[in-house]
Amino acid sequence: MLIRAFIPAHITAFFVPRFNENPLFAGSLGAGINLTKGTNVFVSIESGLERHIHVAFNGEPVKKEQAFISYSVAEEIIPQEFEGDVEIWQYFDFPNGHGFGNSAGGALGTALALGYYFKNKTFLQAAQIAHKHEVLNKGGLGDVIAQVHGGIEIRIKAGAPGIGVVDNIFSEEYKVLTIPLGRLSTREVLDSDVVKAIEKEGQKALGKLLKNPTPENLMHLARDFAENTGLLNGELLEIAKEIDKLIKLPSSMVMLGKSLFALLREEELPRVQEKLRDLSIDNYPICGIYNEKPKVGRWIG
Amino acid sequence: MLIRAFIPAHITAFFVPRFNENPLFAGSLGAGINLTKGTNVFVSIESGLERHIHVAFNGEPVKKEQAFISYSVAEEIIPQEFEGDVEIWQYFDFPNGHGFGNSAGGALGTALALGYYFKNKTFLQAAQIAHKHEVLNKGGLGDVIAQVHGGIEIRIKAGAPGIGVVDNIFSEEYKVLTIPLGRLSTREVLDSDVVKAIEKEGQKALGKLLKNPTPENLMHLARDFAENTGLLNGELLEIAKEIDKLIKLPSSMVMLGKSLFALLREEELPRVQEKLRDLSIDNYPICGIYNEKPKVGRWIG
Repeated sequence: MLIRAFIPAHITAFFVPRFNENPLFAGSLGAGINLTKGTNVFVSIESGLERHIHVAFNGEPVKKEQAFISYSVAEEIIPQEFEGDVEIWQYFDFPNGHGFGNSAGGALGTALALGYYFKNKTFLQAAQIAHKHEVLNKGGLGDVIAQVHGGIEIRIKAGAPGIGVVDNIFSEEYKVLTIPLGRLSTREVLDSDVVKAIEKEGQKALGKLLKNPTPENLMHLARDFAENTGLLNGELLEIAKEIDKLIKLPSSMVMLGKSLFALLREEELPRVQEKLRDLSIDNYPICGIYNEKPKVGRWIG
Repeated sequence: MLIRAFIPAHITAFFVPRFNENPLFAGSLGAGINLTKGTNVFVSIESGLERHIHVAFNGEPVKKEQAFISYSVAEEIIPQEFEGDVEIWQYFDFPNGHGFGNSAGGALGTALALGYYFKNKTFLQAAQIAHKHEVLNKGGLGDVIAQVHGGIEIRIKAGAPGIGVVDNIFSEEYKVLTIPLGRLSTREVLDSDVVKAIEKEGQKALGKLLKNPTPENLMHLARDFAENTGLLNGELLEIAKEIDKLIKLPSSMVMLGKSLFALLREEELPRVQEKLRDLSIDNYPICGIYNEKPKVGRWIG
C-alpha cells in the first residue's frame, strides 16, 4: 500500500528557544508562516520475511546517518512485530538546511503516514514522536507544531503538539516570496552567544504581535528581530533592502537559513521579479499561505 | 464587505461533561465526527451612523433572544467605537436542536468572520469568545473546540480552544450517514440524573478509544455508550437495529439529539437507503468526514 502525506514548508519569522530536558516540553515561542509548497512523503509498505526501513531524499536513497530523524520516527511507530519492507520517499520543494522546515516536514510526514497505515497511534501521538526526534537531534524546535496548525501561526506556549499552544492570525490573500540563498546551521546558532539577543528580541516581538495580530505587523516585527539580533547582515541585508524599495511591507530573513521572505500582493510581483533577475537570483519560489492541516491518505496513482 | 465562514457540523459520539465556574475551563471530554455539511455564516459589514447588529437563521431575521449566543459573540468582538450595520446571516445544513452543533457553528462562524474583518483578535481569541458564550448559555460544551480541529476527534482535555486539547484519529474514506429525527434539549439532559451514567460510561469509552484509536472502535464504543446510558431507546433504538443488519459497523445516537449516525462504505449505501425508504424516513443527509480547519475569508459572489 502507498500512503502520501503533505507537510507545508514552515518559515520562522522570529522565535524564542525553550530548552527542556524532556523533549516534549522543549520547543519555541514565536511566529511564522506555513507555505503551500513543502514536503511530500510517500510511504510504501509491503509485508515480507525481514524488517527493512529505507529512506530516500528527492528520489536518492540515503544512509541511516543522513536521515537519522526519520529513521528514529519510523522505528518508533512501526510495530515491533512487523516484518517487511517500509520505503519512505521524501520529496522537498525547498533545499535542505535553508530554513524551510524540511527536517520537520520529513519527520512529521513519516510519522503521519505510518500512523495512518498501522492505526496504532493517534494524530497527536504520531506528531509528538516527530517533534521528539526533531528536538533530540536538533533538527528544529518549533517547526513540527507549527506545521500541524498551518496558516500564519504564533507559538504562544512551547512544546510538542498537544502540549504547546499555537494560535493563528487572520490574513487576507498574500503571496509569499521566498529566496533560499544558503545554509545556516540551527545547531551552531543555538549553541552561540547570539541566543541571548534572540531570547530578548523574540519575547519583545511576541508581545507586540499579540497586541496587534496582523500579517502586516508580523513583517515589521520579523525585520526588527532579524536586524536587532544581528542575524540579518551583509549581502542578505543588502538584497532585503533592494526588495523593500519595491513592496509595501518589509521583507525579512528566514529563521534559520540564509534565506529571505516577503509578503506581497499579486500586483507587486512583476517588479520584484525584474529586480531579482537584475541581481542574478533565479531560484525564488512564490507560494501561497497554507491555511490547512497536514494531509495524509492513501495514494492512488 | 462580505465575509464567509464555514464551520463543519459536529456529531458527538460519547462524552464526559466537565463543568467549571470559568467557562474557558468548562467543556467536555469525548469523541465525535466533523462533517462536510454544517453552518455557513455570511457577515456583511457597512459603516454608518449608528451601531446595529442583525442575525438571521436560514434567511429569516431572528430576535436577539433567539440568537442570544451569536449576539453576545458579536457584541464582544465588534470594537466599541464601531458605528454601522453588521448583518450576520447563518445558514444551517441540519435542523436546529437535533445534535449537529448548529449553535456552536453559528457562534464560531460569527466569531471567525468578525475577527477576520476587524483584525483585533487572533484565531484562538475569537474561538474562545464563541466557546465562552456557548458554555454560559448552555448551547454546548465541546462543539466549538471539536469544530476548530475537524476530522474524527478525541477531546482528551476539556476547555476552550487553546486550553482544552483535541486529538484526531486517522481514518480511511468513510461516508457518514446522518438521520435527524427530533430535538433533544442538551440543557435538560445535563440537568438530569442521567449525567452520572454519562460520566461513568464516557470515561470508560474514552479510555478504550485511546488504547485502540480507530474509527471502527469508535463506533462500537459510541453504541455501547448510547445504550448503557439509556439515552438510545424506543423507536430510535429500533431504527438503529434495522440499519445494523445492513452495514458492517454499528450505528449510534447523536449526542444530544433524537438523531442517528453511522459510518459506512459507499457500497453499503444503496441497501440502507432502500431500508430508510421502507421506514418512511426521507431526510438522511449523507456527508463526508471534514478533515480540515474551519474556513474564513472574503466572499466574492
